[in-house]
Order: sequence, then C-alpha cells, then structure tokens
Amino acid sequence: MRAEQPHGSPESSPTREDCLALDRSDSLAWARDEFVLPRDVIYLDGNSLGAMPKVMPARIDTCLREEWGNGLIRSWQDAGWIDAPMRVGAKIAPLVGADPGEVIVTDSTSINVYKLLFGALHALPGRTTILTIEGDFPTDSYVAEGLIRTLGKGHRLLRAKAGDLQRSVDSDTAVVLFTHVDYRTGRMHNVAEVTRAAHAHGALVLCDLSHSAGAVPVDLEAWGVDLAVGCGYKYLNGGPGAPAFLYVRRGLQDVIANPLTGWMGHADTFAFADAYVPATGIRRYLCGAPVILGVDALECALDAWAGIRIADVRAKSIALTELFIQLVDGSAELRELSIVSPREPADRGSQVTLQHEASREIVGALSDRLVLTDYRPPDLIRFGFAPLYLRFVDVWDAVRHLSAVMTGDEWQAKRGAPLRFVP
Amino acid sequence: MRAEQPHGSPESSPTREDCLALDRSDSLAWARDEFVLPRDVIYLDGNSLGAMPKVMPARIDTCLREEWGNGLIRSWQDAGWIDAPMRVGAKIAPLVGADPGEVIVTDSTSINVYKLLFGALHALPGRTTILTIEGDFPTDSYVAEGLIRTLGKGHRLLRAKAGDLQRSVDSDTAVVLFTHVDYRTGRMHNVAEVTRAAHAHGALVLCDLSHSAGAVPVDLEAWGVDLAVGCGYKYLNGGPGAPAFLYVRRGLQDVIANPLTGWMGHADTFAFADAYVPATGIRRYLCGAPVILGVDALECALDAWAGIRIADVRAKSIALTELFIQLVDGSAELRELSIVSPREPADRGSQVTLQHEASREIVGALSDRLVLTDYRPPDLIRFGFAPLYLRFVDVWDAVRHLSAVMTGDEWQAKRGAPLRFVP
Repeated sequence: MRAEQPHGSPESSPTREDCLALDRSDSLAWARDEFVLPRDVIYLDGNSLGAMPKVMPARIDTCLREEWGNGLIRSWQDAGWIDAPMRVGAKIAPLVGADPGEVIVTDSTSINVYKLLFGALHALPGRTTILTIEGDFPTDSYVAEGLIRTLGKGHRLLRAKAGDLQRSVDSDTAVVLFTHVDYRTGRMHNVAEVTRAAHAHGALVLCDLSHSAGAVPVDLEAWGVDLAVGCGYKYLNGGPGAPAFLYVRRGLQDVIANPLTGWMGHADTFAFADAYVPATGIRRYLCGAPVILGVDALECALDAWAGIRIADVRAKSIALTELFIQLVDGSAELRELSIVSPREPADRGSQVTLQHEASREIVGALSDRLVLTDYRPPDLIRFGFAPLYLRFVDVWDAVRHLSAVMTGDEWQAKRGAPLRFVP
Repeated sequence: MRAEQPHGSPESSPTREDCLALDRSDSLAWARDEFVLPRDVIYLDGNSLGAMPKVMPARIDTCLREEWGNGLIRSWQDAGWIDAPMRVGAKIAPLVGADPGEVIVTDSTSINVYKLLFGALHALPGRTTILTIEGDFPTDSYVAEGLIRTLGKGHRLLRAKAGDLQRSVDSDTAVVLFTHVDYRTGRMHNVAEVTRAAHAHGALVLCDLSHSAGAVPVDLEAWGVDLAVGCGYKYLNGGPGAPAFLYVRRGLQDVIANPLTGWMGHADTFAFADAYVPATGIRRYLCGAPVILGVDALECALDAWAGIRIADVRAKSIALTELFIQLVDGSAELRELSIVSPREPADRGSQVTLQHEASREIVGALSDRLVLTDYRPPDLIRFGFAPLYLRFVDVWDAVRHLSAVMTGDEWQAKRGAPLRFVP
C-alpha cells in the first residue's frame, strides 16, 4: 500500500513557512498557551498522557491547602468532594454525546470494563459470548478473560478481525466490546454501524473511548451505544493515572448491575445499613471512596475545554495528521517507514502510526532529540496529535527530526539499549 | 456498665494545667508541627480523614510541575511512577508487620476486599461460607454480598456476633473477614486468636486494617494473617480518598488469584500480549493505571513516619483515650452520655465512642464550636485520637466544649437541621 504512494517529491511538500502560516490562521492556536509544554520538546504522545493545563498547580494547591488542610473532613460536603464523581462525569458528558447523569468518573478503565461487562452478561443470561476485535487494547480483553474465569459459567471471549466485527455478532453474543479508535493503528471504527448490528441480534455494545474522547466527535446517544468507558489521562489531560469514566445509557441503569457493590454506590451511604441497596441512577457504579486529588485534577483539565467545540478540534486533528502523512510521503529519507494508519481521514483517529523493523530504536533516537512518541510492539511508532496544544510547525519539525534519525546512525546506536516503557 | 462508673468527681479529674504538662513531656509532641491544623479547630476525626502533612503542597507541586508538566510521559520511568504502587506499599509494610513485596498500594479498600475475597473462595473451592462480624464496617459485607451474587454459586455471608467469631468458624468457612478495630465502638479484636481459630479449621483470614494501621501495632506476620486490606486516608494521612493497600502473605501469592486482571497486573504490561499472564509477586494484584497524584500524596504522608515508633504512637493513643474517658467519667454534665468503647485499653483502638439519643445534634453543636467529631447512626458520637497531632490539652478542651453543649441549649437547636455527612 505504501509502495503506491509518491516518495521523495519535496516540491509537493509544505515548507516550514507554510506550517507557520497554518499556525497563524489556526482558530485553536490560543489553546496551546493554556498548557505547560517544556521548551524544545515536541510532544507527540498526548494520546498516552495529555499535557498539563497551566492552571493545574494552583487548582491542586487550593484543594490541598484550603479543602484538605483547613476544611479537613468538612470538605466532603463543603467542597463538594462527595458529589465530585457525578459532577465531573457531567462535564465529560458533552464531549461524548451523553447527558449529565449518564457519565460518572470512577476507578480505572479496566475496572469499569469489568463492571459493565458483568452487567451486560447478567442482563442477558442466556448468552455466552463476549465479542471483541483481534488485537484490540489488551487490558479490555484481559479483563474479559478474568471475568469469564471468575464467573466460571462457560462464557467465552471471541475475537473477530476488525473488518468482520459486524457479521460476527449472532444470537449468542451478549456484548460487543471494542475500542472506538485502535490504540496501535489509529483506525476509527464506525460505532453506529457496530451498534446497529449488535442490536439487530439483541446484543449490547460496550465501547472503549480511551483513544477518542477529547480528540474526535463522539455521540453515544445518537449512535445508540449502551455502555462505554474511557480514560481520563489521554486526550482529556487529567494527569497521570487520572480516574476513568463510564457511561450507561439512562434506560439501562436499572438493568446493568454493578458487581463491585461498595458503600459509595449504596442508596444511602451514610446510613451504614447492613444490607446493600444500590443507588438509583449512575451513582450505583461507584464502589469505594473517590481519589479526590485525581478527580479534582481531571475536573480542572475538563474546565480547559470551555469554549472549545469538538468539531474544531476534529478539523485541526485531521489537518495535523494529513500534514504529517503528506510530509512523510514526501520524504525520500522515510521510504523505509510504512504508514499503517488509514489514509482516509474519516477512518482515522488523532494519531498516525508508522512501521519499521527498528521502531524501538527509532523511538529512542527521537526521544534523544526531544521528539516524544511511543513504541508499540512489535514494530510500530505512534505519533499522537493532540489538537489543543500541537502546532503545525511541530509536525514539520518532527518529520525533519525523523528524517535526520533515519539518515544518520542514531537509531543504529540504540540497538540493545533499554527503552522507556510508556503506558 | 456506665452506671457503675463514678460521675461528677471533679477532684479526681486532671486539670487543664495537668494536660499542658503532659504535652510538655510528650515525646511525640514534635510531630504535631509536621501537620496543618487550622487555628481553633480541635480535630477528633483523624480516624476518618487524617490531617495534611505540611510538606504535602510542595511535594505535590513538584509532582505536577516537574514530573507531569516537564517530564510528561517520560516520568512513568524517570520519576518512578510505574513502580509507585510497590514502592509505597513497601513503606506501609513496616507499619503492619509485613515485608516489602507483601503490600501494594492500589484501588480502594472495597475493590481490594473484592479481589482478596474472590481469591480466597477460589483457593478453597469446596467451602461456601464467608464469615464476618455482625455490624462490621458495611462496605466489606456489601462487597462480599456483591461477590456472592456475581459468582451465583451458593456461597453465603454468615454474620457472627463479635464474641462468637472464633467459635463460628467451621469446616465450611472459606474466609473470615473482619475489621481489626470496629469503626463504631473502637473495639479491637485479637487478630492472632481469630487467625488461629480460622487456621484450625483450614479457613483463611482477611483482616481490614482501615481503623488500625498507623494507630495501633499491627503484626500481620507474627499473627499469621493470610490477607489484609487497609485505607490510606485515615491514620496514614494520605489525603481524601487516598488509594488503599492490600497485603497477601508471600507464600499465598501464587494461590490467591486476582479476578480483576488488568494490564498493570500482567507479567509484561508493555508487551501488549494477547493473553493475560499474571505478574509474579504482589504486583499481580494491580489492575489499571495507578492514580499517581493519589499514590504520591500517600507516599509523602508515609515519609512523615520516619523516626516514629508505632509503640510510642500506641502509648500516646492509650494515654489520650484514657484521659478522655477519665474526664468524661468525671463530668457530671456528661452523665447522659454512655461510653460504648471498651474500657480496657488493650481492647480499644484509638477512638472512644459515646452514645446519646441526640448524638446527631450533639455532633452538629460540637462542629459549630470547631470540635470536629463524627456521627454514626443511630446514636453514636466518635472521638478519634490521632496521636501524631493530637495534644492532651485538646482532649481537655474537647470535653469542656462537650460539657458546655450538654448543659446549654445548643444541641436542642440542632433538632431537624441537616447534618454534614462524613465518610
């Protein structure tokens, strides 16, 4: 496929001046100033850990000194800690096409997958199949396998090829579990189509938005999605290991049981009753006490979205990834690298993935040049484009660095060297 | 029982001057200066949310600006984020009589109870009973109920009276689940005796240390305890909703399966392999990404324990609670309040609980006087004594305020008023 592309046609490639002009006319350019970005770093890993909003340290300092230090236990009420999972969930809702009361911030993506997969299997007791996509993000299938072993009732995890997902749904499928945007290739699935196919067979859909929320338009309600989870620390910029979120369509909240029945999901937490009675609504998917520093940081990051339309984010994301692809195509030095991401923008999230047998070493050499990308086994380099703080000139400079790495001996020198691991 | 105590014998009660003298000779008095305590507040709720170490804001600011802001994704390795759950677990280990490699910081207490209860049931498949104590902390039994429903295999939760726990163990008991120090009464159980009784019947023990770790000596290894969980935000001062910890005796780590099989518990997280293979050792009890801000805050709080011997903490705790009981006994104004905590110090944790039919209102009136305690339904007031930052004079002043509340009309005015809820 790559062989069909023109290579080494610099006369058709945009110049650095062209990129600077694109930045000058970028309607989202102002947003970059809201984030901390270390001098000289080109950060192409916002799809793994989003950058920090500049207001974050002051916000967290207030949470620490005023709320914890001075407010002490009173802040559960006075500072709104107790409602934070619902309040912050309501701030995610518009980014994923949900209503307040359908999204809650809690626990990790993995744990939320466990909750909702169980809820789906429990709601459809006659069905034994969890259907997912071969090579999808591993933790989702690890959790599915763990749940199946835990239940010990003969459920199975069936892995379809991406293109075969819809036609693999059948009357034994309880739930279709898949990531909206593939973490390796950046391929974006048509969630509405998958959901229609699932519903046609009476199955539920659990969509993982970790690599799409905050980067591409998500419209859970319009798409008819039943259940969703997502990550707080990638495009939502909630900080390292930020709490995750989950979505349950309002009409299903009485049907999808939470197996992790802790006190914070109880109908009356502070009655300390002997018997568990689930809360009504989305709060029933809580389990233990929320990590307030984590939830507060995520809320601060979400507040940075005020005044930003996701359509504008998507338009810039497409422009950034198209520019990158065009520059890679136009560079003779990069002819050994294959583009494995879809070339059709509509099929692509906000990342472009390149393939090379020495990807691990190339990522290391780029990192030495302060171009931060990440390596995914066995041979992939991910370039993530976070539209809130990436400039067009960053894309140009990154490709220049990549060309220098490929033409010099920098990556060869990395052979056998330890590589940083990157969640 | 209370009726047998002398009341209104002020001549036998310590004076405020006596308490100031006790503070002057307190070998732990210096530790109070390490914590933020708002002026005029008497904080008797450190058993619910520990006070903030003064170094916390600077430490978290570094985590934000240097590690997240400048280090970005590189900090997973360079700032040690990826090892934080094990590193901080190793700092808890000496406080609970465990070795490094037996304790890990992760998720919430409730979720950790779920993991370890499942692990115990899975390890003893012929047994159907989870044995617990009637009236023990609710979330533990909520989680047990939820797990039993999730498995749907005829397990049952049996609630014994506290005094009957040991003789209620039998050959059908898979695991005995109980809180070391009762959250309402402050009664401290003899964990070693319970463990001996459990082991005599081939059952496992899962001990919840939420109300004891950091306040009383805990020696899991000497007591032979199999499994334990605990809270990071009470006596360990890790901040609101701090991540929790769990302990699995080293010899059991291959036997106790984790049902929540997320990528962070995988033997090789960053290989992104298709199949789940659990990590060796305590790391297998991880699931999703750790909330770094929460783990970092807990680590900062644990560093405040450097140079502090738990035996000294316990000695001061006993002295504080004995003083409180003596002052209550000696106050004629308090004769309507019953002490429901054990009077024998060896049977008591670091709290004293009083009973009164208007407890709810009394807690509200005390709060107006900046004496922070908490209410537990139906009629209990908990006074928690965190030895690291409570002074003897605080105990004296708190009793004076309580006496004033009981003799005036402050608490009557609270009838029907909303009360803050306090996790």
